[in-house]
Amino acid sequence: MRRLNPIDNAFLLAEGRNQPLHVGALCVFHPPAGASPDFVAEIADRMRASNSASPPFNRRLESHWGVKSWVESQDFDIGQHFVHLSLPKPGRILELLSMVSRVHSAHLDRAYPLWRTYLIEGIEDGRIALYSKIHHSLVDGVAGIRLMIKSMSEDPIASMQLPAPWELRPTATRNKSIPAVAFGSTAAAIQMARDGLTSAPTVVRHLRQVITDFRSENPYLVTSFQAPNSILNDRISGSRRFAAQSYSTPRIRQIARTLDTTVNDVVLSLCGGALRRYLGELGALPDEPLVAVVPVSVRRDNSETGNEIAMAMANLGTHLADPVERVRLVKGCMDYNKTMLKGMTPTQIMAYSAAVLAPGAFTLLPGVKNHRRAANLVISHVRGPQVDTYWQGCKLDGIYPASLVLGGFALNITLISRHDNIDFGIIACRRSLPSVQRLLIHLEEAIAELETVLGLSYDPATESEDCKAISGYCLYPRTGSEKLDGQMTTAA
Amino acid sequence: MRRLNPIDNAFLLAEGRNQPLHVGALCVFHPPAGASPDFVAEIADRMRASNSASPPFNRRLESHWGVKSWVESQDFDIGQHFVHLSLPKPGRILELLSMVSRVHSAHLDRAYPLWRTYLIEGIEDGRIALYSKIHHSLVDGVAGIRLMIKSMSEDPIASMQLPAPWELRPTATRNKSIPAVAFGSTAAAIQMARDGLTSAPTVVRHLRQVITDFRSENPYLVTSFQAPNSILNDRISGSRRFAAQSYSTPRIRQIARTLDTTVNDVVLSLCGGALRRYLGELGALPDEPLVAVVPVSVRRDNSETGNEIAMAMANLGTHLADPVERVRLVKGCMDYNKTMLKGMTPTQIMAYSAAVLAPGAFTLLPGVKNHRRAANLVISHVRGPQVDTYWQGCKLDGIYPASLVLGGFALNITLISRHDNIDFGIIACRRSLPSVQRLLIHLEEAIAELETVLGLSYDPATESEDCKAISGYCLYPRTGSEKLDGQMTTAA
Repeated sequence: MRRLNPIDNAFLLAEGRNQPLHVGALCVFHPPAGASPDFVAEIADRMRASNSASPPFNRRLESHWGVKSWVESQDFDIGQHFVHLSLPKPGRILELLSMVSRVHSAHLDRAYPLWRTYLIEGIEDGRIALYSKIHHSLVDGVAGIRLMIKSMSEDPIASMQLPAPWELRPTATRNKSIPAVAFGSTAAAIQMARDGLTSAPTVVRHLRQVITDFRSENPYLVTSFQAPNSILNDRISGSRRFAAQSYSTPRIRQIARTLDTTVNDVVLSLCGGALRRYLGELGALPDEPLVAVVPVSVRRDNSETGNEIAMAMANLGTHLADPVERVRLVKGCMDYNKTMLKGMTPTQIMAYSAAVLAPGAFTLLPGVKNHRRAANLVISHVRGPQVDTYWQGCKLDGIYPASLVLGGFALNITLISRHDNIDFGIIACRRSLPSVQRLLIHLEEAIAELETVLGLSYDPATESEDCKAISGYCLYPRTGSEKLDGQMTTAA
Repeated sequence: MRRLNPIDNAFLLAEGRNQPLHVGALCVFHPPAGASPDFVAEIADRMRASNSASPPFNRRLESHWGVKSWVESQDFDIGQHFVHLSLPKPGRILELLSMVSRVHSAHLDRAYPLWRTYLIEGIEDGRIALYSKIHHSLVDGVAGIRLMIKSMSEDPIASMQLPAPWELRPTATRNKSIPAVAFGSTAAAIQMARDGLTSAPTVVRHLRQVITDFRSENPYLVTSFQAPNSILNDRISGSRRFAAQSYSTPRIRQIARTLDTTVNDVVLSLCGGALRRYLGELGALPDEPLVAVVPVSVRRDNSETGNEIAMAMANLGTHLADPVERVRLVKGCMDYNKTMLKGMTPTQIMAYSAAVLAPGAFTLLPGVKNHRRAANLVISHVRGPQVDTYWQGCKLDGIYPASLVLGGFALNITLISRHDNIDFGIIACRRSLPSVQRLLIHLEEAIAELETVLGLSYDPATESEDCKAISGYCLYPRTGSEKLDGQMTTAA
């Protein structure tokens, strides 16, 4: 039995009827050539034969006199956690995404460990899917993706021997560890800000720089009160729409190389371009640019549990018609964030992020109104496996995150960079954002538009190993052991 | 726009994370002989082509300054309300019931009209299923079953022409109508009790009789403080287990005839017998008999919306080993209830029920402790169609209700009497009541046990039209127009 830390607890308290706080991911796989018709049923049988779960999958919530704690559950009920589903005919990806939209909308039962995994067959082209959800109080999205990838292997045969995802022993070097701040946890953020301000002169120095830049109207400084009102920031319903698509990593990398920037900057610009088109079609594009919060992991170890996240702020350039100008603006903002975050310890970074984001932090400045959202949406970029990967003998074709939709934040875009594709997972309030799946088309158009403007045509033969290094948003250098991990990292 | 009545509102207020307050029903159908492989997909296409809903299916909740009202929703979103599913292989009834258990556990989104219908294919024997859920604030369970049956026809060809269940115009003779009392709505019940006591001498006279019977220890008077503690009355989780089975109406009717009682009394006794075995296996059978609340509709019109229910109390005789003694005890209790309810108007009945059930109503009597539940479980008996019935060309094979599980009421048994079978729908908290599906086996055993003791063997040829009249618990005489309705009725 272990008392919840304040962040995990905040995620439980903040959960509401219209706001379940679990994170999910949809993995799509190719079964091996010549797989028998019973192949999926056999995987399901293997999964159902599981009679135990490892941490955090065995942690159940208990409450005594209002104090919540995690207990290691002894009565594992596989029928509660593993579900075998089939798509109705015709089994298109449309049917798959509808199904994931529905199951992602439903709350997890707090009487059991807070996770569930669905094995889905019946896709018309013979692929199979695995959708998993786990409560954000148990793991953050990045750690969740990591846990999922840990149940895979580079070797198709070896992957058949790996236990179920929930039976893997996590690398549990954490627990006491560094304090954490999480998006949405205002009280904790303010506490962190206060601690940081009193204890860390570095943070104070950086914040002074922010104030100077604000006064001099530095275009790359994005503050927590400049985000315009938009339909992305309406009240939310309890229903979700999930949309997912893969886009060629080499194509996006070529654009980044041409513009001398990172894949991450291009990807954020593409989101800006797609949102400009989507909101334009609805007649709902704000005059001022949309602002995205980009979570940055400040986890230094390899542990898979708990939440350790700092926040960067990006101007998405949705007011700009020119896609190249948009990339330059995003790059300027992200470089500004990196300069500010560089040289700080994780604790200082979190204190800084909290101070920049915490509502009220800027009302100290004269003339600032504070009734807006600190940002319009969250865009997360997670590093995925960089080689072909297998689960139970099936080759991974895509891994699409379904993250949090919060009151006032009706849209979340999370993407996973892999060697061949960048997999976009878009989750939104079904009611606030009609036909949000159109963003997938607009993303494709935004890539094509940049290629046209830059005179690029994609040729896979031009790829080199060197190019592959320019990928993702890497705050800390990657270590060899993280090769298959989904850690969110920053290109320096 | 129309303000919610207090009962409907009570059902919304009482809803919690572990206690969704929708009612559901699973219908199973035989498709017509020679149906094409696309038959189910074509039904799904017809349903999805629907672009409007009739009351109550178009009513969406709105809240202004804390006052809730129903508005007729103009933006019908069929994708939110109609879902096409397929069972994974092997497509046994086990897989069907698991799926219904899961979807029944999930809350409806209050941003939309509070209902959803699932068309389910992939059952191994080729049957198809329709599971529908609707919030109890829109209709009670009986009215919900009625609405479902209204979309069916005695003529298979004509049934193909009927609109989707949510497009039917209900018989809306109600609205202002008689006040209502609903189980679980204590405040309303107390209010009703007070109104009844001050306005209706009949009610006072009946309550005086109850007190006399209590003092003289009449074994057929079941009071709201005699139910023993049991695992049926634990705290509930948010997860459900749904179990369903049909039992031969002629077999049960033969037992009723032999014991000179009603089918309803036999059915309640069978539930008692099955619960005795189930709890005995778990070592959790209380020494004192379990008490069931049996809802009785006091609706006089044919309307399908809103809630109008009174309550009868039955001793289930779970302390008795002899099944015949158990039937006699149940019959005594139900006859006592009928005597009390007879001669009262619906309003008086509700006031009386409220007074008998409302916690605290009996604490006026000396020496009565009030920390127990008023009853152990709810058993509802609904009259279903009495002829072969078709939906979209498919013959109805069974209609199994999935009703409410409430905090302290971890089990609900609802059954629908049809001409050929009585369809039992058992819904329970998955965590409080392990393997509750074993009740289905115990029900079968309880029928066989009675047949053995009574020396009966079932021969369908002995059936006559006369026998068919002895069915159900009919408080009001049936009218011709109700032939296909699922109104809960009482044999006088």
